Amino acid sequence: MSDPLTTLRERLAEVADVARAAGVLVWDQRVTMPPRGTEARAEVLATLGRIAHERFTDPEVGRLLERLRPLEESLPYDCDDASLIRVTRRDWEKACRVPTDLRVEMTRAAARGHQAWVEARRESDFGSFLPYLRTNVELKRRYVECFEPADSAYTPLLDDYEPGMTTAEVRAVFATLRPALTELVRSAPQVDASFLHGSFDPERQRAFAGRVLATMGFEEGAWRLDPTAHPFCTSFSNRDVRLTTRYRPHDLESIWSTMHEAGHGLYAHGIADSLMRTPLGGAPSLALNESQSRTWENLVGRSRPFWTHWYGPLQEMFPEQLGGVDLDAFVRAINRAEPGLIRVDADETTYSLHVILRFELEQDLIDGTVALEDLPEVWNARMREFLGVEVPSDADGVLQDVHWSGGAIGYFPTYALGNVISLQIWAKVREALPDLDARMAAGELHGLSAWLRDNLYALGRKLTPKEALERVTGSGTIDPEPYLRYLREKIDSLR
Amino acid sequence: MSDPLTTLRERLAEVADVARAAGVLVWDQRVTMPPRGTEARAEVLATLGRIAHERFTDPEVGRLLERLRPLEESLPYDCDDASLIRVTRRDWEKACRVPTDLRVEMTRAAARGHQAWVEARRESDFGSFLPYLRTNVELKRRYVECFEPADSAYTPLLDDYEPGMTTAEVRAVFATLRPALTELVRSAPQVDASFLHGSFDPERQRAFAGRVLATMGFEEGAWRLDPTAHPFCTSFSNRDVRLTTRYRPHDLESIWSTMHEAGHGLYAHGIADSLMRTPLGGAPSLALNESQSRTWENLVGRSRPFWTHWYGPLQEMFPEQLGGVDLDAFVRAINRAEPGLIRVDADETTYSLHVILRFELEQDLIDGTVALEDLPEVWNARMREFLGVEVPSDADGVLQDVHWSGGAIGYFPTYALGNVISLQIWAKVREALPDLDARMAAGELHGLSAWLRDNLYALGRKLTPKEALERVTGSGTIDPEPYLRYLREKIDSLR
Repeated sequence: MSDPLTTLRERLAEVADVARAAGVLVWDQRVTMPPRGTEARAEVLATLGRIAHERFTDPEVGRLLERLRPLEESLPYDCDDASLIRVTRRDWEKACRVPTDLRVEMTRAAARGHQAWVEARRESDFGSFLPYLRTNVELKRRYVECFEPADSAYTPLLDDYEPGMTTAEVRAVFATLRPALTELVRSAPQVDASFLHGSFDPERQRAFAGRVLATMGFEEGAWRLDPTAHPFCTSFSNRDVRLTTRYRPHDLESIWSTMHEAGHGLYAHGIADSLMRTPLGGAPSLALNESQSRTWENLVGRSRPFWTHWYGPLQEMFPEQLGGVDLDAFVRAINRAEPGLIRVDADETTYSLHVILRFELEQDLIDGTVALEDLPEVWNARMREFLGVEVPSDADGVLQDVHWSGGAIGYFPTYALGNVISLQIWAKVREALPDLDARMAAGELHGLSAWLRDNLYALGRKLTPKEALERVTGSGTIDPEPYLRYLREKIDSLR
Repeated sequence: MSDPLTTLRERLAEVADVARAAGVLVWDQRVTMPPRGTEARAEVLATLGRIAHERFTDPEVGRLLERLRPLEESLPYDCDDASLIRVTRRDWEKACRVPTDLRVEMTRAAARGHQAWVEARRESDFGSFLPYLRTNVELKRRYVECFEPADSAYTPLLDDYEPGMTTAEVRAVFATLRPALTELVRSAPQVDASFLHGSFDPERQRAFAGRVLATMGFEEGAWRLDPTAHPFCTSFSNRDVRLTTRYRPHDLESIWSTMHEAGHGLYAHGIADSLMRTPLGGAPSLALNESQSRTWENLVGRSRPFWTHWYGPLQEMFPEQLGGVDLDAFVRAINRAEPGLIRVDADETTYSLHVILRFELEQDLIDGTVALEDLPEVWNARMREFLGVEVPSDADGVLQDVHWSGGAIGYFPTYALGNVISLQIWAKVREALPDLDARMAAGELHGLSAWLRDNLYALGRKLTPKEALERVTGSGTIDPEPYLRYLREKIDSLR
């Protein structure tokens, strides 16, 4: 007869395994599944979702957690066991509020919605996607009703991605960000970036990204990189990390998209072995996770020190396009501010404006202020308002992101929060590694990678997002000033 | 409150979903998983195996089956519902004899064994694989003990792959085959096949196979083809079929390996929609399945009519190697008998000798006549005895097949039985499609594909292997004579 902690761990390992299995099936659907496999896939994912939900919300788990309170209270707050009990209890109480059937419906709708979105985006046909979007929004409204009323109907959705965060807090941060970013973008100088648009053989892009990735600190045989319609990163353990990216033949965006996903990948890779097959085996929140993808994509990948080492090799890979462009011109171009249509391609300065637009629109969809059938028109009007750009087609407009197709509403704000947090953490990184620029200029990234792993990634989900941020930076408050300072310095450097 | 048949179908759908999910994870392990993901993968597969086994062997399933007896007996034998109840009962009674823990151990060991084998074969290092093989053999001995004694300890293992088949029956068929094949091989004329060994760009091999596959009758978007270490076919529904093949730069074997797996794929693709997510959603046995892979690989893929259409395009793809070789010489070469080392590369005439060797060796491993540490030596001695060839390394010897790494003992004989059955079915095919040769010579394969689907594949597992063979050919007995006649005619045509 096992002690309650062992029994709990066994139960959680089983739930984690089923969730990881579902993760493989989702990866497979996005990367390798023949499209006609969608219906069967939706059923399998629904079944796995049902099993995971039932096993986890079993009252027996609640009983085990109660029996373990004394042990939890006797242990150091952030040790593995106390954290396991505490975090599991929080997850369990939330999960128990959701009826299994609703969880299953959401899972099934997400699988079907994804395929419908792939086709709708390819054809720029919002109408064919609308019924799936409607289903997802309705399911999310029902999901919101499972919880106690909060400051906003949006908050329970946000909580899935950013535990403990409220809509009000996000609004406060964005209220500072939006006008500052709008002004920065308006005042940013024009920068010549014509050489970044041309003919860039995707095979060479892949080879270049591969060389960079090889220096980032992944253990061999523990990860892979594949092409997909909408880049993402997922992992099935800390040694089975799947990065995906998108190559386009006429630009080099894949470099930053790959480094972005690799940042997520390093996070997953860096989680301590002891946390595998438990609810602690992930990042505390999406914003924390995003802080890392943006760190590698931007704070590293758009920095002069990084390109001091890597620009020569990039020129050798693409001599016709870049041979006559010096390092300064390249660094300026990749740091310019230039409003565009596509969030994932946006420069660092305009990026969060894309996110704030989605944050507001999601709230409008959930509370019914905007009708779904009006979405493309409203999207286009807001793009004009936020960024001053005209949207030529829904594929480049409301259909550009995958999130709503999978029912991920409440996710978008975490991208901008992640940007903000990345600079708070970066300040600590630079304190700890005062020679970081010199290292990057010498092509050495593993010192950075190791520090982030030891100080953040290894913790997994033991701490809340606020607790983790405080552990790393000394403060748990989201503070947009370092981020705005960084962007202002960057824009100034372009003048 | 659902009626018992609906309840049973829901339960079976859930079990089928979990099994299909595991199938995706196995495919992923073989095709895309980073190798360091193995341990975590073994645990996830063990968990899914446990869940599927527990859900299926639940006494509630037995109770539902009992309540459904009257309905079953009132319906036509081979209608979907009666078949579902009958076949499920048979599967359930067998599954209930196996303790969950044993099922889980076998699943975990298979996942670990696979990775160990990939590495052992790459390094030609049997010693590193031995412990995993030992584990698998010991688990299979324990598995045998779950069942009533049969004519042989091998029979329960064989039954997993060839339901209802006994070791004695297989021995009888092979007792006819082995001497006849040995004599055929001995008396076969030498044929010049030097042009089949050279430089064949794998990309072009892939392009050629793709063109052939496009004519075989798959619906678009319902399948895919990937490279892997050991070719196989799996499917997650009749519209998510995964073919895998192996390309080598110095020969064209990938053509036949691809057509072989495509034959399995067409079977899976042709199973009726109504049988999906039930125990009926597969082929009745591996021999029946293999009869189809060998039909497409050999009866079609090595036939003069097929190459009458396809040899010109193949020459265009490989002008240096084949430009000066006429159709006759090519067809003779691909139909020659030439003992070699590798089963999957063996010509049609020698192939079953490779299989019979394994059939006998497997029995020796299970009953302990051959000690595992002596396996390479014994293998090499038997290759000398069966085929007159010297094995230069374990990678080309005992380590060449994937089966034992995944615990699949009892599987091999089905390959030779499949060869035999393929000719029994082919006789009926040729009766039904008297102009088949003319069709193939005109590049038209979908008539064949449709007939096989309508007359065999669509049945799924509704009938036993014997019943299915009888349904298609008029007799349920395995008869090696048509196969031997076919081979004799072929070898005669080479003189």
